[in-house]
Amino acid sequence: MYILSKDFPDHVGTEVTIKGWLYNKRSSGPIAFLEMRDGFSWTQAVVAKAGVTTEVWVDVEKVTHESAVEVTGTVSKHLKKAGVFELQVTNFKILQLAEDYPIALKDHGPDFLLENRHLWLRSKRQWAILRLRDAIITGINQYLHQEDFIKVDSPIFTPNACEGTSTLFAVPYFDLGSAYLSQSGQLYIEAAIASIGRCYDFGPVFRAEKSKTKRHLTEFWMMDAEAAFFEHEDNLRVQEGLIRYIVRYCLEHCQEELAALERNIENLKKVDAPFTRYTYEAAIKKLNENGSDIKFGEDLGNDDEGILTKDSDVPVFIEKWPKSIKPFYMKTDPSNPERVFNDDLIAPENGGEIIGGSQREEDVNVLINRIKAEGLNQADYEWYLDIRRYGSVPHSGFGLGLERVVRWISGTEHIRECIPFPRTIGRLRP
Amino acid sequence: MYILSKDFPDHVGTEVTIKGWLYNKRSSGPIAFLEMRDGFSWTQAVVAKAGVTTEVWVDVEKVTHESAVEVTGTVSKHLKKAGVFELQVTNFKILQLAEDYPIALKDHGPDFLLENRHLWLRSKRQWAILRLRDAIITGINQYLHQEDFIKVDSPIFTPNACEGTSTLFAVPYFDLGSAYLSQSGQLYIEAAIASIGRCYDFGPVFRAEKSKTKRHLTEFWMMDAEAAFFEHEDNLRVQEGLIRYIVRYCLEHCQEELAALERNIENLKKVDAPFTRYTYEAAIKKLNENGSDIKFGEDLGNDDEGILTKDSDVPVFIEKWPKSIKPFYMKTDPSNPERVFNDDLIAPENGGEIIGGSQREEDVNVLINRIKAEGLNQADYEWYLDIRRYGSVPHSGFGLGLERVVRWISGTEHIRECIPFPRTIGRLRP
Repeated sequence: MYILSKDFPDHVGTEVTIKGWLYNKRSSGPIAFLEMRDGFSWTQAVVAKAGVTTEVWVDVEKVTHESAVEVTGTVSKHLKKAGVFELQVTNFKILQLAEDYPIALKDHGPDFLLENRHLWLRSKRQWAILRLRDAIITGINQYLHQEDFIKVDSPIFTPNACEGTSTLFAVPYFDLGSAYLSQSGQLYIEAAIASIGRCYDFGPVFRAEKSKTKRHLTEFWMMDAEAAFFEHEDNLRVQEGLIRYIVRYCLEHCQEELAALERNIENLKKVDAPFTRYTYEAAIKKLNENGSDIKFGEDLGNDDEGILTKDSDVPVFIEKWPKSIKPFYMKTDPSNPERVFNDDLIAPENGGEIIGGSQREEDVNVLINRIKAEGLNQADYEWYLDIRRYGSVPHSGFGLGLERVVRWISGTEHIRECIPFPRTIGRLRP
Repeated sequence: MYILSKDFPDHVGTEVTIKGWLYNKRSSGPIAFLEMRDGFSWTQAVVAKAGVTTEVWVDVEKVTHESAVEVTGTVSKHLKKAGVFELQVTNFKILQLAEDYPIALKDHGPDFLLENRHLWLRSKRQWAILRLRDAIITGINQYLHQEDFIKVDSPIFTPNACEGTSTLFAVPYFDLGSAYLSQSGQLYIEAAIASIGRCYDFGPVFRAEKSKTKRHLTEFWMMDAEAAFFEHEDNLRVQEGLIRYIVRYCLEHCQEELAALERNIENLKKVDAPFTRYTYEAAIKKLNENGSDIKFGEDLGNDDEGILTKDSDVPVFIEKWPKSIKPFYMKTDPSNPERVFNDDLIAPENGGEIIGGSQREEDVNVLINRIKAEGLNQADYEWYLDIRRYGSVPHSGFGLGLERVVRWISGTEHIRECIPFPRTIGRLRP
């Protein structure tokens, strides 16, 4: 009977067949240990020369890394490791013999691995990241639906920029001039909440990012959430609830993956505690006390984020930033007209910024003044201003960078491993 | 207490507050009937002049379409309609008075509505389509996970074309020449199944589509699924299971939406029956018998699809097409080398093609010959050929056009209403 390896617990003592690929092989005289993977788990298949035909043993000796194979055997529990199963092999077939698989089970340089990304994905670490990424996506979809958000896809082709033009990709678009690839769907889902109350988009966004860092891609996945009648405090509550839900979801569903990644799950469990909060002002004070030379009115650098999260087990909110360094659509704090009702959420363990959010300005005249003050073209935003002309309501939202969250939860240093096929300034293949 | 209208059933007899927008207003002397929407449902709020203060009654008389409002009242069950609730109003506030809302509750031309898409989304029909679209997305995610597929995002920026170059959007990409916007992630998820067994992508794809039809957009959402060790029959089984799951999910979760769309749900319920199947050869024969002048070796037109689905309550598979009109990656039927193991799935009720799938060729030499025969550049596909060089396995997959499915299930004529912000040859705004 053909089954998936994840179903071994239901078949202990039974003869089953699994199909997959040979990851590794060790021999000890008349016993061979085949490390198999079928996509769902990793399995040790034990072959005794005395227990199989001569033809099967010849194939066992011949089989190479990454060959496609079919293994039949009896499922047994691992003698020492709970929850781990083995196959005592009775039959073995090579479906396709792989010759000279280019990725050895040793270290390669990043360029070589990226050039062979279509094969590199098969390594245990990349397998674990792919599955963890899926769990994070599923956690996001589940939590937001529980909180009554529905998915409303914002467009990729946009006629104008949301956050500056220097990092925009332009695409010739028929007779309509250039289309720009979206950097955020926020403005569009702000329009949609007046139809369906609460919504989110979740798709690729694009930045013509010229800096080579461990945190930047030219194409990455962003989730933007937006809710009518949500104010600043509601916004932070949902962000905190979302991150906690995602982490718990991964801890529950990705134990094998987190183990493969050698992730310290005790650290992840700590997000059950309330998140740390600083106002921007308090953050600058703390940074200056801890040796940073950041000045009031400047954006935080990576080192600053490190200082602020160093003694926190949980993600850290930095809220209420100076209006002068934030986009036009953020709502002014009525108690301090130089501040806006916004937040950045910084993950601990050098996770970096994973969320940015704000309450949005709902007064059409304030918004027009901000657009003018920033030198933007009001005509480009007339449709966006309509949201405030017809039934304007208090509302808030935030954007979550998927690869940033994958990077933090998986404990990966470089973000290029956190998306299946990374795109950067120097990479467009495979 | 502030609640969402969807929670009325838990608050019958209680005074609650809802916040939202005024959709419509009727007056009958000292009684006003306010049709409210808060994004989650439509609610009739009944105001008796005698039951509110003079100031409130002035506001009730003054309030305009699409003004933002806050309504407090006692929840009651509708006297005649089961599952419908009303508010007996005790207080009413205008949060923001909308003036001269451009979309009246009457017919406008499509250009005007598309130009005001950010407001048009608020109409009852568009609200229902947005929510139905979300239910379809959720149904897809749920079913595929149940069947052990995980989400693996394929890239948008690609170095070469999957299905011809005439409808590709090209983007200048740093020093690397042009990137092309993806038309399908299939080739990428074929690589990923050798890591994780079964996977799907689900994101926007792009076609520089110059034809103006009711079924085409330049930017639309596609779900591509792929599974290792799936052959042609497995592929059709999952496609059928997926469509049935989606329809059942919508019937269960979108009753108010389907009613607002005046969709004949009895017709939708019929998809529980096994789907109709024709081979391409049988389809051509049936078409010729029914007056079509289609010739063997030609693709089906809209009229042909209509003839084949006319007497079917369920979607119709057309399988095993001539190799000559299908892409290089489809697997040849060993029993007939002029045919491939593929299928198109056509929705009934003029739903059109909603899925296209195939078993993929797993023999590297056959694949190389097909690439050469089609005049493609083998160098562009070396990475794809690697999938067959290293552990090649039988595998199959399919692509589902989200807007096509939304169009069919919602009973919408024009596909531009099936995506929140449609993009066509003549439209890039708002």
